[in-house]
Amino acid sequence: MEHRDEALTEYLEHVVEEELQVHHEGSMPSYMEQIGKADKDLVGVAVMDVNGECRQAGNAQEAFPLESTSKVLSLALALEDCGAEAVFQSVGKEPTGEPYHAIAALQEGDRGVPPNPMINAGAIVATSMIHGRDGDERFARLLHFIRTLANDLELAFNQAMFEAEEKDLNRALFYYMRSHQVIEGSEDDHLVPYLKQTSIEMNCVDLARIGAVLANQGRDPDSGEPLIRPENVRILLTLMFTTGMYGGSGEFAVDVGIPAKSGLSGAILAVVPGRMGLGLIGPALNERGNSIAGVRILKRLSTRWGLGVFS
Amino acid sequence: MEHRDEALTEYLEHVVEEELQVHHEGSMPSYMEQIGKADKDLVGVAVMDVNGECRQAGNAQEAFPLESTSKVLSLALALEDCGAEAVFQSVGKEPTGEPYHAIAALQEGDRGVPPNPMINAGAIVATSMIHGRDGDERFARLLHFIRTLANDLELAFNQAMFEAEEKDLNRALFYYMRSHQVIEGSEDDHLVPYLKQTSIEMNCVDLARIGAVLANQGRDPDSGEPLIRPENVRILLTLMFTTGMYGGSGEFAVDVGIPAKSGLSGAILAVVPGRMGLGLIGPALNERGNSIAGVRILKRLSTRWGLGVFS
Amino acid sequence: MEHRDEALTEYLEHVVEEELQVHHEGSMPSYMEQIGKADKDLVGVAVMDVNGECRQAGNAQEAFPLESTSKVLSLALALEDCGAEAVFQSVGKEPTGEPYHAIAALQEGDRGVPPNPMINAGAIVATSMIHGRDGDERFARLLHFIRTLANDLELAFNQAMFEAEEKDLNRALFYYMRSHQVIEGSEDDHLVPYLKQTSIEMNCVDLARIGAVLANQGRDPDSGEPLIRPENVRILLTLMFTTGMYGGSGEFAVDVGIPAKSGLSGAILAVVPGRMGLGLIGPALNERGNSIAGVRILKRLSTRWGLGVFS
Amino acid sequence: MEHRDEALTEYLEHVVEEELQVHHEGSMPSYMEQIGKADKDLVGVAVMDVNGECRQAGNAQEAFPLESTSKVLSLALALEDCGAEAVFQSVGKEPTGEPYHAIAALQEGDRGVPPNPMINAGAIVATSMIHGRDGDERFARLLHFIRTLANDLELAFNQAMFEAEEKDLNRALFYYMRSHQVIEGSEDDHLVPYLKQTSIEMNCVDLARIGAVLANQGRDPDSGEPLIRPENVRILLTLMFTTGMYGGSGEFAVDVGIPAKSGLSGAILAVVPGRMGLGLIGPALNERGNSIAGVRILKRLSTRWGLGVFS
Repeated sequence: MEHRDEALTEYLEHVVEEELQVHHEGSMPSYMEQIGKADKDLVGVAVMDVNGECRQAGNAQEAFPLESTSKVLSLALALEDCGAEAVFQSVGKEPTGEPYHAIAALQEGDRGVPPNPMINAGAIVATSMIHGRDGDERFARLLHFIRTLANDLELAFNQAMFEAEEKDLNRALFYYMRSHQVIEGSEDDHLVPYLKQTSIEMNCVDLARIGAVLANQGRDPDSGEPLIRPENVRILLTLMFTTGMYGGSGEFAVDVGIPAKSGLSGAILAVVPGRMGLGLIGPALNERGNSIAGVRILKRLSTRWGLGVFS
Repeated sequence: MEHRDEALTEYLEHVVEEELQVHHEGSMPSYMEQIGKADKDLVGVAVMDVNGECRQAGNAQEAFPLESTSKVLSLALALEDCGAEAVFQSVGKEPTGEPYHAIAALQEGDRGVPPNPMINAGAIVATSMIHGRDGDERFARLLHFIRTLANDLELAFNQAMFEAEEKDLNRALFYYMRSHQVIEGSEDDHLVPYLKQTSIEMNCVDLARIGAVLANQGRDPDSGEPLIRPENVRILLTLMFTTGMYGGSGEFAVDVGIPAKSGLSGAILAVVPGRMGLGLIGPALNERGNSIAGVRILKRLSTRWGLGVFS
Repeated sequence: MEHRDEALTEYLEHVVEEELQVHHEGSMPSYMEQIGKADKDLVGVAVMDVNGECRQAGNAQEAFPLESTSKVLSLALALEDCGAEAVFQSVGKEPTGEPYHAIAALQEGDRGVPPNPMINAGAIVATSMIHGRDGDERFARLLHFIRTLANDLELAFNQAMFEAEEKDLNRALFYYMRSHQVIEGSEDDHLVPYLKQTSIEMNCVDLARIGAVLANQGRDPDSGEPLIRPENVRILLTLMFTTGMYGGSGEFAVDVGIPAKSGLSGAILAVVPGRMGLGLIGPALNERGNSIAGVRILKRLSTRWGLGVFS
Repeated sequence: MEHRDEALTEYLEHVVEEELQVHHEGSMPSYMEQIGKADKDLVGVAVMDVNGECRQAGNAQEAFPLESTSKVLSLALALEDCGAEAVFQSVGKEPTGEPYHAIAALQEGDRGVPPNPMINAGAIVATSMIHGRDGDERFARLLHFIRTLANDLELAFNQAMFEAEEKDLNRALFYYMRSHQVIEGSEDDHLVPYLKQTSIEMNCVDLARIGAVLANQGRDPDSGEPLIRPENVRILLTLMFTTGMYGGSGEFAVDVGIPAKSGLSGAILAVVPGRMGLGLIGPALNERGNSIAGVRILKRLSTRWGLGVFS
C-alpha cells in the first residue's frame, strides 16, 4: 500500500464512521436473533495488504459466523485435495440468477448437478469432496485449513449457531443430489461438515487475512508460504466475481468490480488481486441477502481507489 | 352389468388376448428387475361392477406393488381422518405438467406446497396426515384401510421391494417441505409410511374391487357398508381424472375419459362412476410412466363401451 | 328439468339476488374501463336445458365480450374443420398451472408447442387452423358458427373493445410459435381472427344456449340439428373440465365439478352434460382471473342440485 | 507487446496452423449455409495491441457477420447516448444460465425485463435506446459508431444475411417486452436496427481493432482519441466476462479468463484489458453456440501467455 496507506486508512475510517451513523432497515436470518447476534447496526472492516499489513475500522474485532463466505474456503480445499477436473465433474461453473437455496436448478436435464459451487447445493458437493475418512475428519481438516489461512489457531465453530440453523433445506439438496449419484455417502459424512463450516466464527481481521492470501496468489502474506495453488486461486476469484454475491452478483461485478463472497451473517470476503484482502461485517441484509453496509463500503472504496478488476 | 355382462367379458378376454401377443418395448424401473419382477409381457385385467360381480382376463391373479396407485388410497384415508379442508391447506388441487418426482414445483412462491396429491410430494403430505401416534401406527391403519377396501386381509407389503426402491428423491421432497413447515415430524413417522405404502402388493382383482368401492360412492360392493364418504370419493375421482396419469393425464382424459391412477409397477386403478372398478397390470411403461398395455386396453374398453365421463 | 324447473328457477333467482347485494372487490382488466364496461356489481345468469327451455336471473340480458370463453368455440370449429388428430399435432392436451398468458411453457423442449388450447398460445393455434382463405374469412366463418350455436344472427364483435385490448402479448406468443413452425402465415391471417373473436359480444342467454348445445352432445336444443360432432363435444368438455378456469381449474373441478370456461370479462360458459348449459356474467375477478360471482353461483348450484360430474 | 511480440506472433501462427488441420464437427446456423457461408474449416485470428500494432494468422481477412458480437457494440453506443443509469432501468446486469434466445426469463416477476444485455432480449432493449428519430437513423448512427471503432468506413451490412435470418423469435421477444412497457415504439424503429446490426460484416482485423479500443480504456489505439467513456468500457468488459459466451460463460471465465463475446457466425471479440484486442473466426460451433476453434485458440493463448484477468 506504500504511500497510499495512510490515505486509505483515513478514508476507511471515514466511510465506516458514516455507516455507523446510519440505521439499517435490512432483514436478518431469524436464527441470528436466537443466538443473540442481532445487532443490525454493527459495522466493521479490515483490510490486509499482500505484505500482511492490516488496517481496520469500526467493529472489526467482533466475531461472526462465516455462513456462505465459507463456500470459498471449502471449495479451495476440495480443489487442493482433488484437483479442478475432478471437482468440476460434479458441479458446474455457470452463474445463474437462482437464489442460494434453489433446488429447481438441480432438476434441469434431470442430472442433479448444481450449476456452480457458490450456491448451497454446489458447496455441499465441494465440501463432500474434501479428503477425510469420515465427516469428522473432513471437517477437522477444513477447520485446520481455515485456521492456517487466517493464521489463527483459535478459530472455532459455534455450536449454538450450528444447532439453531435450519438444516432441512440443505438436507433436501443433499438427498436430491444423492438420488442422482452426484454425491454419495451418509448425511454425517458428507452433509454435516458443510453444515458445520458455516458456523465457524471469525472477525474481520481474520477474514481480511484470508483475502490477502487469495490476493497474494495463494501465498501467506507473512511467510510467503504457498497455501493454495495459483491455478486454484484463479478459479476461486473467478467464481467469486461471477457468482459470489447471490442474485446480486452481476450488479456487484458491474458496480463494484471486486471478487467477493457474501454470507447471511452479513459477512463479506473481498479480494483485490495482487493488492489486498478485505473482511467486512454488517448484519443488515438487502433483498439479495448481501450486507447493506458491506456492499456500500466496498462500492465507495472501489470507486475512490480504483479497485475494480476492469478499472 | 346385466345383459351386457357376457359381451363385456368376451370383449375383455379378446382385448387381453391380443395384448398378450404383443411384445412390449417400454421401459421399467430398475428396482423391479432387482426383485425379480421384470416380466414386460405380463398383462392382466379385472373388472368388478358395483354389485361385486367380477370378470378377469390374462394374468389378473399376479401380485404387483401398488406404487403410485397407492396415492389415491392414502389420500382417501387422510380425507376421512382430517377432512378436505385440513388436507388442502397443505397440498393443492391443481394439475401440472410436472413429472411425479418434480421438486421444482415446490419452489414456486417459496411456499413448499405441492400442487396436488397425485405427485410424490403431495402424496407424502397426504400420508403424513393420516392419524396415528407414529409411523408404524400410521402405516398399520393405512394397510388395514386398504385391506378393507379390497376385502382381503392377507394383503401385505413387500419388504424386498421396499428395500430395493430408491428413497433419496422422496427424502429430498420430505425435507424441502419440512424446511417450509408444510410437513412436520420425523422421517420415520412421516415419510416412511409413504415409502412403505408403495410396496403394498395386490393383484388385479383386489385393485378392481377398490375401484368398485369408488364407483359405488364409497360403499362396499358386497355389503353396501360405507367405507369412504361420498364427498371424498368425489374429490378422489376428480383428482384421478385431472392428474392421475402423470404427465399424460390430459391426453388420457381426452382419449379415454376414465378417472384412473397409474403406478410405475405398471398398475392402473380405474373407475367408471356408478358402474365398475378396474384393476390392470402391464409392467412395460411408455415415456410418461404409464402402462402401455393398460392404457391401450382402457382406451379400447372406453371407446367400445362408452365408458368415458363425457361419453 | 321437468318438476324441478320451478324449484331451480326460484333457487337461481335467490342466489343471484344475494350476489347482487354483495359489493365485489375483485379486479378487472383496464381495457374494460376504457370501453365503459366497468360495472363490478353486474351479475347475471341464464340456464338453458337440452330442450331449449331457458331460465334467467339478474342482468342476464347485458352484453359482454366473450374474451377467453371464445376459446372453446374456436377450438370447436377447428376440430370440426380439421379433425382432432390434426389439431393436436400443434397443441397439447395437458393442463398446467401456468397463467393464460404464459410464454415460458412454450420454451419447454424447445418445440414451441402450447400445452393445451385453453391458454392463449394454444387458442391462437386452434383459431389459425379454422378453414378460410385469409383472416377475414376465418373470422367470418367463426362468427357465423357462433351465431348458429347461439341461434342469434345479430351477434357482432365490438370494434372499440378490439381496439382497446392489449395485443402485444398475443403477438409475442404468435411469433414465438411461428419461429418454431408451430404456426405459419401472417399476423393478419392467423393472429387477427383470434384477437377479434375475444371481442365478440353476447349476453347470458346466448351463452347458456351455446352451453345447451354442448350439453346436448352437439345438437341444437330446439331443432335437434347436429352442430358439433359428439366426439368433438367430448374433447371440449374434457378440456373445459381439466383446464378451463385458468390457474384455478383444479380447484374448480374439485369444488364445483362442472366443465366450464371463464373469460376476463367476467363471463363463464358452463355445461352440465345431458342436462343444461349455463351462461354467467360478473365482471369482478378473483386472483385467478375468474368471475367471483360466477364461481360462487356455480358452486352453490352444483352443491344444491348435485350438478358435478362425479356427484 | 515489445520483446514478446515476435514470440506471440509465432505462437499464434502455430496454434492457428494446428486448428486449420483439424476437421471441425460442430454445428452451424442453417441461414449461414443459405448465404453460402458454410465453411466449417475456416479459422482466422487477429490481435491488435493498444498501440495499434496488429498480428494475424489464418483466414483473418475473411468477412463474416457480427451476429451476437454486435451486442457489445450496440450496448456501448446506448451507454454513451443515455448513460448507464437509464440503460439499466430497462435491462438487468445478472448472468443467467439461459440460452441467448430464452423468453422464459422475461416472464419472471411478470416484469418483462431481460436479465442482461448479452442475451437477445436485452440487446434489443439496448439497441432501441440508441438515439435516433427512427430506426434508420438509429441504425445509421450505430453503423457509423462501429466503423469508427474499427477505423474502416467501408464496413457494411449484408442484406442477403439480413433477409435469410429467422426474425420471428426476436419479434416475439420485442412484443413480449413491449406488452410490459419495457420497450416502446414500432418494430421498424426499435427492432429492425437490432436485426440489422447482427448482419454487419467485418473481418478479424476489424474485430481485433474494436477489441483494442476496449483494451485501451475506450481510446483509439492509433490516435488516442476517446471513443467510449472509461466507465462504460468497464461495464462492457464486466458483462463480457460474466455473460458473453452464452451458456458457457462461466466455464470460459474459469478456463480462459478473458472478457469475450461470441456470435453464431463463429466470431469472437476478446479483450485483454490494457494490452490487446482479439478478433477470431471459426464457424463450427460447440453445443453452447461458441466457436470451437475460437475457444480453443483463446484458451491456449491465455494459458501460454497468462492473459486471464486473474492470472
